[in-house]
Amino acid sequence: MRRLKLVLEYDGTDFAGFQLQARGERTVQGVLEAALARIPGARPKVTAAGRTDSGVHALAMPVHYDTEDTVPVERVPQALNALLPPDVRVLEAEEVPPDWHARYSARWRRYLYRVLNRRQPTALDRHRVWWVPQPFDFPAIAAAARTLVGEHDFGAFANREKRATVRRLYQAHVEAVGGELHLHFVGSGFVRGQVRAMVGTLVEVGLGRRPPEDVARLLENPERSEGGATAPPQGLYFVAAGYSPWEAGAA
Amino acid sequence: MRRLKLVLEYDGTDFAGFQLQARGERTVQGVLEAALARIPGARPKVTAAGRTDSGVHALAMPVHYDTEDTVPVERVPQALNALLPPDVRVLEAEEVPPDWHARYSARWRRYLYRVLNRRQPTALDRHRVWWVPQPFDFPAIAAAARTLVGEHDFGAFANREKRATVRRLYQAHVEAVGGELHLHFVGSGFVRGQVRAMVGTLVEVGLGRRPPEDVARLLENPERSEGGATAPPQGLYFVAAGYSPWEAGAA
Repeated sequence: MRRLKLVLEYDGTDFAGFQLQARGERTVQGVLEAALARIPGARPKVTAAGRTDSGVHALAMPVHYDTEDTVPVERVPQALNALLPPDVRVLEAEEVPPDWHARYSARWRRYLYRVLNRRQPTALDRHRVWWVPQPFDFPAIAAAARTLVGEHDFGAFANREKRATVRRLYQAHVEAVGGELHLHFVGSGFVRGQVRAMVGTLVEVGLGRRPPEDVARLLENPERSEGGATAPPQGLYFVAAGYSPWEAGAA
Repeated sequence: MRRLKLVLEYDGTDFAGFQLQARGERTVQGVLEAALARIPGARPKVTAAGRTDSGVHALAMPVHYDTEDTVPVERVPQALNALLPPDVRVLEAEEVPPDWHARYSARWRRYLYRVLNRRQPTALDRHRVWWVPQPFDFPAIAAAARTLVGEHDFGAFANREKRATVRRLYQAHVEAVGGELHLHFVGSGFVRGQVRAMVGTLVEVGLGRRPPEDVARLLENPERSEGGATAPPQGLYFVAAGYSPWEAGAA
């Protein structure tokens, strides 16, 4: 028996999220476990570093599974890619210790959210960005984003979260890239719906619908009903997870 | 009667190219003319600056049509976008003189070709790039590309072209962008299949399958059978057309 770590890229457009669904909808875990079931010796139960919602993408999602198959690890990406649909690709495979865990061993996760800020919508990136046509107050968004960094109760940004809602956010960085606004977040972990609710709130700040100081207020009085609307899924990317402590300036 | 110029962005993935097809396949011209037919007074016959093949994208394709409709020109993008499918978007509309012609008035066209050069394929950009996993000799590609610039007979790169095959190429520039190779071409006009055949040939140079000097030889003895393979459509983008003389350093 060995434990393998894979790194996956996927296009979330045609998936009902990462996690296996009771109702048999198409999920990333579902197609990956179906591919593994075709490799003799593999035990196709997959665990991921994070769970993405329907329509959310991943640039490099770590997962693990246990297997008794005999495929040399350097051939695993090509072998699995031949069995997977084209909207999921295996980028890397490596053998990890049996106690290594894609989810519990992860020390940080990085997300990117892309907002297209121009007058007209996009054809090419319609499944890749959130289109917001009104002009933004960029300094207001950047100031509000900075107040999110640190250990806080993110309950105002949680969606149907049953766990405690205190998390540590290491980075919340906003940059203008061409006609887009890119929002980068790194945290120890995230509550359900957190990134999309933070983005929805920051965009309301950028459009002048709430003052930047509102964000600090939401962290002090974490009522979900006070937080901003949830940004749509197609602008969100799970970028990476790390298995060493977070250091500013790292990946 | 007025003549309107539109600038279109489209995702070529689900189109059988720009031009109306006799067999009723889905084309950009077809869906645009169907949308125009729903605006009273519009005469839905559209002419484009260039004709793209099936799977080829456009970032800013100029087109024109004549119309007696009364929609204010500043409202035309929004009005048409409400009638068009989401893989075609109108970015701009303006009234032009009645003798202005999207195709015949164009003085230059710009194309971009994206090659993804890494070991593993991509899920997110599978309809946006040509994946070539083997490492490239970048200086060899750049040197070969430079020899394409100027007025030449591009017959070695033509595909079923019935017109003469002499064209002027103003720019052929190769750059490394992240893990991608971006090939930029600006020319007065292009023969059918020229960009994809030039890219196919340059990639063969980059993989060491033919020497960079081969490209000059193909321009001197323009035999299509001697040119490289045609690169696949999904990496090709019609970037823009210009209606003033080309100046190096311009758009």
